Amino acid sequence: MPRESWKDKILFTPGPLTTSPAVKTAMLRDLGARDADFLKIVLDVKKRLLDLAEVDGDKYTVVLMQGCGSMGVEAAVGCAVPKKGGKLLVAINGAYGKRISDMARVMNMPVETLDYPENAPVKPEDVGERLKNDDGITHVAMVHCETASGIFNPVKEVGKIVSKRKRVFIVDAMSSFGAAEIKIDKWDIRWLVSSANKCVEGVPGFSFVIVENKALAASAGNARSLCLDLHAQNEDMRRNGQFRYTPPVHAVLAFHRALLELEAEGGVEARMKRYRRNCRTLREGMAELGFEEYLAPDDHGWIITSFRYPRNTAFSFDNFYNLLRDDGFVIYPGKVDNADLFRVGNVGRIAPSDVSCLIDAMRRSLAKMGVAMAPGKIPE
Amino acid sequence: MPRESWKDKILFTPGPLTTSPAVKTAMLRDLGARDADFLKIVLDVKKRLLDLAEVDGDKYTVVLMQGCGSMGVEAAVGCAVPKKGGKLLVAINGAYGKRISDMARVMNMPVETLDYPENAPVKPEDVGERLKNDDGITHVAMVHCETASGIFNPVKEVGKIVSKRKRVFIVDAMSSFGAAEIKIDKWDIRWLVSSANKCVEGVPGFSFVIVENKALAASAGNARSLCLDLHAQNEDMRRNGQFRYTPPVHAVLAFHRALLELEAEGGVEARMKRYRRNCRTLREGMAELGFEEYLAPDDHGWIITSFRYPRNTAFSFDNFYNLLRDDGFVIYPGKVDNADLFRVGNVGRIAPSDVSCLIDAMRRSLAKMGVAMAPGKIPE
Repeated sequence: MPRESWKDKILFTPGPLTTSPAVKTAMLRDLGARDADFLKIVLDVKKRLLDLAEVDGDKYTVVLMQGCGSMGVEAAVGCAVPKKGGKLLVAINGAYGKRISDMARVMNMPVETLDYPENAPVKPEDVGERLKNDDGITHVAMVHCETASGIFNPVKEVGKIVSKRKRVFIVDAMSSFGAAEIKIDKWDIRWLVSSANKCVEGVPGFSFVIVENKALAASAGNARSLCLDLHAQNEDMRRNGQFRYTPPVHAVLAFHRALLELEAEGGVEARMKRYRRNCRTLREGMAELGFEEYLAPDDHGWIITSFRYPRNTAFSFDNFYNLLRDDGFVIYPGKVDNADLFRVGNVGRIAPSDVSCLIDAMRRSLAKMGVAMAPGKIPE
Repeated sequence: MPRESWKDKILFTPGPLTTSPAVKTAMLRDLGARDADFLKIVLDVKKRLLDLAEVDGDKYTVVLMQGCGSMGVEAAVGCAVPKKGGKLLVAINGAYGKRISDMARVMNMPVETLDYPENAPVKPEDVGERLKNDDGITHVAMVHCETASGIFNPVKEVGKIVSKRKRVFIVDAMSSFGAAEIKIDKWDIRWLVSSANKCVEGVPGFSFVIVENKALAASAGNARSLCLDLHAQNEDMRRNGQFRYTPPVHAVLAFHRALLELEAEGGVEARMKRYRRNCRTLREGMAELGFEEYLAPDDHGWIITSFRYPRNTAFSFDNFYNLLRDDGFVIYPGKVDNADLFRVGNVGRIAPSDVSCLIDAMRRSLAKMGVAMAPGKIPE
């Protein structure tokens, strides 16, 4: 039976996500942006983020930045790379990696790219080779989980190489932070960016940057934008505990609640485990339905999965999307250039039983469309 | 009796504001950022904003931009002024005007300023004189209600002069839009910026820019930032109704509800009337308590009012702030350079009766501090 139209749909998307009722109800307050009630919460958010990241507060700082996740990435890149003598290398295997190089170009920043097919992970040795051959490169940026396909990149290995070559490593961990092992300090990550509405399961409204104190101090005056200046934002925060400009108060309240829920669930380890179970349920169900995955099994993450359109003329993604929608499930279009794909996220306040319901709905939708497929091999 | 600590305080600040329960509860949903349920609401928000602004949809467009209000201003300035041959004149009589010139400088944009004391309105004839004498100036930017003091600037008169001199007019109407008469088209405003958490009474999370279609079309490629690109944001929105990057879904839901409430209240006229009554109650009450206003009576707005510290050694702003806070009221520090002031806003979901309660609390606080003042003259 189709879902009642007044019920909100379950989001199988890479974020904004389905969040918990408690996270949303945390927004039912208005606090003064410069009042102690709010500043106490901001301070606690920052402390808990550093704990979650397992970094030492004497060595790393977290800076919150208003806006969407990409604004956090642009702020990090724009602050990290000096105006004189700076040059960025971006390793790219998807839309979000490409976006970083686009940011650099718009900011008039010298930028080189290392380009891979969208279904191939970045190779650490290639980064090493580039750094060996180009003394001008000062910074290296890479996406951890490339949300365009769902592929995970070898941040640990690249970090070691970047550090060995004495360059600065910037990681876009938008859709991995909070549900993946990231040893920021050990892996020599100097700037790590993520966002409120990803694996911590808050609502959208700001990003956060976990940055080595030394790197942040060295970034004074680098920003190409008054607003997207992480150094200035942090200086104000240090002086009076306040955001420089109007903060997204309600999104911060929701995020604070989300951090408490993440801790109650058992931290990064437990959240990763739930997402992995969600993803396993998804991949097994999809294989049984006959869908083929885009990535090779070894390159798979557990955040979002790309599936190929069935080779069946009765299949239309728009119809499929809308039939699922009527049943109460929102999936996501593909975002790679050379393949017809759609994506299914398995992050947010969802569980394997929700994924099972989605698979059932997919079976019904395919039947309605008259798309018959033979069950495929269950992935390992 | 002090207010119970579990009760949220009433915000007499310039925003984020005290919002209505319905505005906040509108956030108790998670919608897919690219799903029709959300896109329909975005479309309706845009339509209602154009109606509220009383502009013709064939001549003006509204572009929403993630982040705080200042990001909207930076995006507008960064998109409006061309990279080659562009030069901005900013008329400044407070911190928000100065911020616009700071933005231009960080973006490496040629910028001139016309500087006034913080308690003096911008003089239209000065703008005319500057434009007459400097052919290089292509754009003029000004703040409508300078929140630093509460002063209103003569946007109508300046607009006429800027238009006569064939330059482009950019107005920061952050804290006036929705509660002040602004004839965008008639006053020749090409770019007008405001924000979700001001007089429309939504929650913070995005700004919006009402821009002449021709000016927006001409701005392609001008942006100094990938994220703060209003032209690109609008192109995506035109193509598929979506934000380019993750939207602040919940803040948009709250804003939609806030727009409906503004209409139900009777539109801009009615809201202005309520704010004027709030402001009148405030100014009369403050005069009776003996407080002196910073601005001359003629320059007064009705959004936020600056008051001088009492000339009484027993007065300490921090104590005063905290005593009021304990009573359940949040006021705001001053923001001008050469005078000891504090500010009291009267916008948001508050009424004259709330302002009366604040005045009573002030009387109690002053008595506790041992600050005695003679009642002053009630302002006209």
